[in-house]
Amino acid sequence: MIKRYRFGTPIETGAVMEKGEEQDRRELFITQTEDGFCYRMSDAMIVYGLGENTRGINKRGWSYISCCTDDPRHSEGTRSLYGAHNFLLLSDRECHTGLFIDTPGKVTFDVGCSQYDLLQIKVEDACDLYVIVGDSAPSVVQQFRSLIGRSYIPPRWAFGYGQSRWGYQSSEDIREVVRRHREQKLPLDSVYLDIDYMERYKDFTINRETFPDFEALAAEMKKEHIHLVPIIDGGVKVEEGYDVYEEGVQEGYFCKDEDGNDYIVGVWPGKCCFPDMLNEKAGKWFGRKYGRLLEKGIDGFWNDMNEPAIFYSQQRLEQVFNELDAYRNQNLSIDSFFKFQNLAPSLSNNEEDYRAFYHNYRGQRIRHDKVHNLFGFYMTRFAAEAFEELEPQKRILLFSRASYIGMHRYAGIWQGDNRSWWSHLLMNIKMMPSLNMCGFLYTGADLGGFGEDATEDLVIRWLSFGIFTPLMRNHSAIGTRRQEAYQFARTDLFRNVLRIRYRLLPYLYSEYMKAALNNTMMFQPLAFVYPEDARASRIEDQLMLGENIMIAPVYEQNAEGRVVYLPERMKMLRFRTDGSIEESIWENGFSYVDMPLGEVCIFVRDHYLLPLAEGGEYVEEVDFEHLKLYSCGEEVKPYEYYTDNGETKEYLLEKHIRILTHNH
Amino acid sequence: MIKRYRFGTPIETGAVMEKGEEQDRRELFITQTEDGFCYRMSDAMIVYGLGENTRGINKRGWSYISCCTDDPRHSEGTRSLYGAHNFLLLSDRECHTGLFIDTPGKVTFDVGCSQYDLLQIKVEDACDLYVIVGDSAPSVVQQFRSLIGRSYIPPRWAFGYGQSRWGYQSSEDIREVVRRHREQKLPLDSVYLDIDYMERYKDFTINRETFPDFEALAAEMKKEHIHLVPIIDGGVKVEEGYDVYEEGVQEGYFCKDEDGNDYIVGVWPGKCCFPDMLNEKAGKWFGRKYGRLLEKGIDGFWNDMNEPAIFYSQQRLEQVFNELDAYRNQNLSIDSFFKFQNLAPSLSNNEEDYRAFYHNYRGQRIRHDKVHNLFGFYMTRFAAEAFEELEPQKRILLFSRASYIGMHRYAGIWQGDNRSWWSHLLMNIKMMPSLNMCGFLYTGADLGGFGEDATEDLVIRWLSFGIFTPLMRNHSAIGTRRQEAYQFARTDLFRNVLRIRYRLLPYLYSEYMKAALNNTMMFQPLAFVYPEDARASRIEDQLMLGENIMIAPVYEQNAEGRVVYLPERMKMLRFRTDGSIEESIWENGFSYVDMPLGEVCIFVRDHYLLPLAEGGEYVEEVDFEHLKLYSCGEEVKPYEYYTDNGETKEYLLEKHIRILTHNH
Repeated sequence: MIKRYRFGTPIETGAVMEKGEEQDRRELFITQTEDGFCYRMSDAMIVYGLGENTRGINKRGWSYISCCTDDPRHSEGTRSLYGAHNFLLLSDRECHTGLFIDTPGKVTFDVGCSQYDLLQIKVEDACDLYVIVGDSAPSVVQQFRSLIGRSYIPPRWAFGYGQSRWGYQSSEDIREVVRRHREQKLPLDSVYLDIDYMERYKDFTINRETFPDFEALAAEMKKEHIHLVPIIDGGVKVEEGYDVYEEGVQEGYFCKDEDGNDYIVGVWPGKCCFPDMLNEKAGKWFGRKYGRLLEKGIDGFWNDMNEPAIFYSQQRLEQVFNELDAYRNQNLSIDSFFKFQNLAPSLSNNEEDYRAFYHNYRGQRIRHDKVHNLFGFYMTRFAAEAFEELEPQKRILLFSRASYIGMHRYAGIWQGDNRSWWSHLLMNIKMMPSLNMCGFLYTGADLGGFGEDATEDLVIRWLSFGIFTPLMRNHSAIGTRRQEAYQFARTDLFRNVLRIRYRLLPYLYSEYMKAALNNTMMFQPLAFVYPEDARASRIEDQLMLGENIMIAPVYEQNAEGRVVYLPERMKMLRFRTDGSIEESIWENGFSYVDMPLGEVCIFVRDHYLLPLAEGGEYVEEVDFEHLKLYSCGEEVKPYEYYTDNGETKEYLLEKHIRILTHNH
Repeated sequence: MIKRYRFGTPIETGAVMEKGEEQDRRELFITQTEDGFCYRMSDAMIVYGLGENTRGINKRGWSYISCCTDDPRHSEGTRSLYGAHNFLLLSDRECHTGLFIDTPGKVTFDVGCSQYDLLQIKVEDACDLYVIVGDSAPSVVQQFRSLIGRSYIPPRWAFGYGQSRWGYQSSEDIREVVRRHREQKLPLDSVYLDIDYMERYKDFTINRETFPDFEALAAEMKKEHIHLVPIIDGGVKVEEGYDVYEEGVQEGYFCKDEDGNDYIVGVWPGKCCFPDMLNEKAGKWFGRKYGRLLEKGIDGFWNDMNEPAIFYSQQRLEQVFNELDAYRNQNLSIDSFFKFQNLAPSLSNNEEDYRAFYHNYRGQRIRHDKVHNLFGFYMTRFAAEAFEELEPQKRILLFSRASYIGMHRYAGIWQGDNRSWWSHLLMNIKMMPSLNMCGFLYTGADLGGFGEDATEDLVIRWLSFGIFTPLMRNHSAIGTRRQEAYQFARTDLFRNVLRIRYRLLPYLYSEYMKAALNNTMMFQPLAFVYPEDARASRIEDQLMLGENIMIAPVYEQNAEGRVVYLPERMKMLRFRTDGSIEESIWENGFSYVDMPLGEVCIFVRDHYLLPLAEGGEYVEEVDFEHLKLYSCGEEVKPYEYYTDNGETKEYLLEKHIRILTHNH
């Protein structure tokens, strides 16, 4: 049951499919406060949700701010990441209640941070509050997901392994990456193009000095079963003669400052304008520009820097130079030094800048901060809508860094710029169910970590988890240690891990499609499947993947295995480094399981089966028809196997599901 | 067996007690490389050591740099912390070998980071290399500890709980902290004075506006059984009329720049000079200044900022202002913006500054970077030596932020400025045995975390571990959430946890003294006690504390318990929140143990006992004579109980040890 309560006159976000009737606020089960809502949580209550965020699957004990933020240095103490996902699920024995705060501005969720038993929500602007009541946590999620609409479905090739790096400088660099994967029999389906491929970081351009043969390269790669996936940034370079910039100026498509002039910020290319992604005309115009790359043979994109990230605003930069001068010849002590030192750093993503420019949204002039969390969403939505126009028959890969609920219908997200930290691997694990709740199914983190230097064991362990995430991309930043699968001593371990991905593809794709079409979660906390099991409800480092299996990744350095909690008897499949699979039965309870580097363990639930393919070096090579079934125990539940050609847009379950039974 | 190999003519550090004869380098078991050493590690080898550092008890998989660094924002990716502890212990079934690189400059330890099976040590200058071979890991440690000499022993009151905060601005603030602890029956033995107590951050001064009655305050506190522990910084403010500065200038006691002028850096007070801590005359002069505070009734100190931390050097600051100008009116793009933005931040702890000033060490002019890791050590050593002169009969509390091996004879360390992160609680746990190996027994972290806001559960969990560490101090930074035990809703939980500390004091003090006098470790990895147990050897989040007990702290948010590995059958004592103790027997293997917030679980080894006192609100109130013994199983090993008056400097074991048997 979903009820909507309205507070003020909120700006339309496009998050939900149908608003439903407004309810009487006096019936609201949470307390309205001066600036939001407040609720006393029971001791046993677990609070799920908030999508892309730090900390646990259980969000209790921290305060989070929904405000799309480019923070590549995020850590345990961070409150805002790249996305803004205002969905919470309060769950204890008596109550399973979802809350969705639909508002495009800032929202603070203090989940027992200031006071351990108080949930305090602060909403800066008007909002619609949706309250979703169900008799279980999954039922609340399913209702919420049906409210916000079907999740994005990528082409099937996008479930293959992708290699990326900021720093692939030329066509030759790309060819080398592919060659070395193929030589070493390391499976691969895509190579990502970071900002290096553009001419002076201008959207929709090609650096013809370093990528002279871009179209030929794309065609050549297609023959090798490799898809090139270029990046598109949220800002358009200010440059005379650059047609996108000039059109934007001429048509008035850019965001404006208070006085109506194009608002200038600094991002990768230096001075840029932001297309007014909320203005339908501007958005459509920008979306259609993707066609230039489609024409060159491209069939996938990632939208970046669309929080939008601001390195500096032209206005503030001038101010900072003046302020810096004032510190000259002072005795810089505790009172002044840190202010001085922080001046230039404080230029980036400065709150005041977000209050200094304006959108034209549905005919109204609206200050950016009031709709901040929609920028990346609408940029992505207009791209997706352009694809519908330009390539109506084709699934195009699309994912974004910034997001808001609603965008999940148009694209996936990656989990933003992270670091080569073990704790970021763990965060990646914990984020999966939280994102699934909010509709984001096509997602994954930068495997191996984007910033800082990765070690071999970290990359192997991260890939060993990444083989389960729909988006499986190894990505790293320029200046950091190279972390492609062929860069380390033990290539055989990498090969083994990557091959497991391709054996799992039929199951992963099937579970993805069913989750998208049934509004269910692909990754669930154990509590969702074993609600009566108090131990299971507190497990934060294992996940249910689809209906049939449980995973328990290793995320600690130098670990040779880990303790796994089995909520029931299960069969463990151990994928050995020689390609064989060892099967063993594990009983209910905590057990220590050896998990040497390069091996992967998967737990098949009792009475369930796991279908496996033979594998392949790219998705097209995988045989989705002839599967080997691994099952646990007797009376094995027949498996509803979804399969299609990976391209069609007719997603009907009835048509594409077939039943696999153990005697198949 | 200890062998010393010499490479070049190293600068004397004072780390070891007796050098022993130089050995023939051709016999060395590790390979000498161009700039250091190299060794191929077996797959099973665990590498212990490196004292204060990030990452695991097993140091494999990362690269560490011994270079004392003020880094309050350290994280998993950090390579240098506040101390420099060049001791490694390589351990597998065949080999237990210690390595100590004795050199006062920078050393890099790449422990399988660049290549997973290679230990690569890079030494910038000449060194003595000590190789210590034993038949077990503990035997190597004991030999090494006897090489470097007996660890510092603080007064017994310093095992009480201490409250600290940068931001206690006045005598009244101090009184309030004490009053609120006493009112709430929260045990307390000391209050720390951060830089706020000084006049304009000048060492050895008192801000008489805010602490007009400093001497009276100290006396009043003593009556309340509270010790005030002021901070002393490594830099001396440049200020006309400030006698310490003027004496330093006049006597030539400050570090000099290339041209022989006093080298000026910016720290808390703004412009400062560094006393030449390596110059015996200057060091003695600075050490005797502590007498000013001893006279005021002070009997404990913490030395800070003595890496030494540099916010900026006068020279570089001017340069940065000029460079900043050059960026004016540029299009700041990817190529220039980050350089611009990083200019002011790069002022702090800049490597070039450490190459720009000089010491007069044993009559020789030596550039600072060549002896960098000795600065904090010698500052602290000269203070300790002054105490011997000024208060020969008294144990004075002394601990430092920066350190080098050798300093452990003179003082303890705290684990530097950390953050209110769960991962820093875990790091605190892992650091304990690593520091003990290197001689640092009196140590602990800033409980609750220094930087950023702490949550109630984090502080309770951190204190629940902190009750085991010799230095038990709750410390936080100005501007962060207050985190004294009385600041949160559930004071009763805090009270229970703190009281357990005072019940444990006889055991903790006894184990501390035995570890100091026998050159053993108070905190050991499980592997040291159960070397045959392969599971135990990989446990990174449990510790053996003394000979008799094992601890398994909770360090994850929202956890209601944790999995504990028992290498053998043990008795668990559960300290309930009502003050009672529940006893239960747990068998060998992995078990899940409920550990609700505010309860503490301690595991007593089979055939061992744990003596407990009744407790008290301060150390003096604890009855160290009448103990209750909790034992596990039959044939309980008699306990060698060390006790003295906590003040004497006659530490003879024979005199102070008595045997407790279960029928005592």
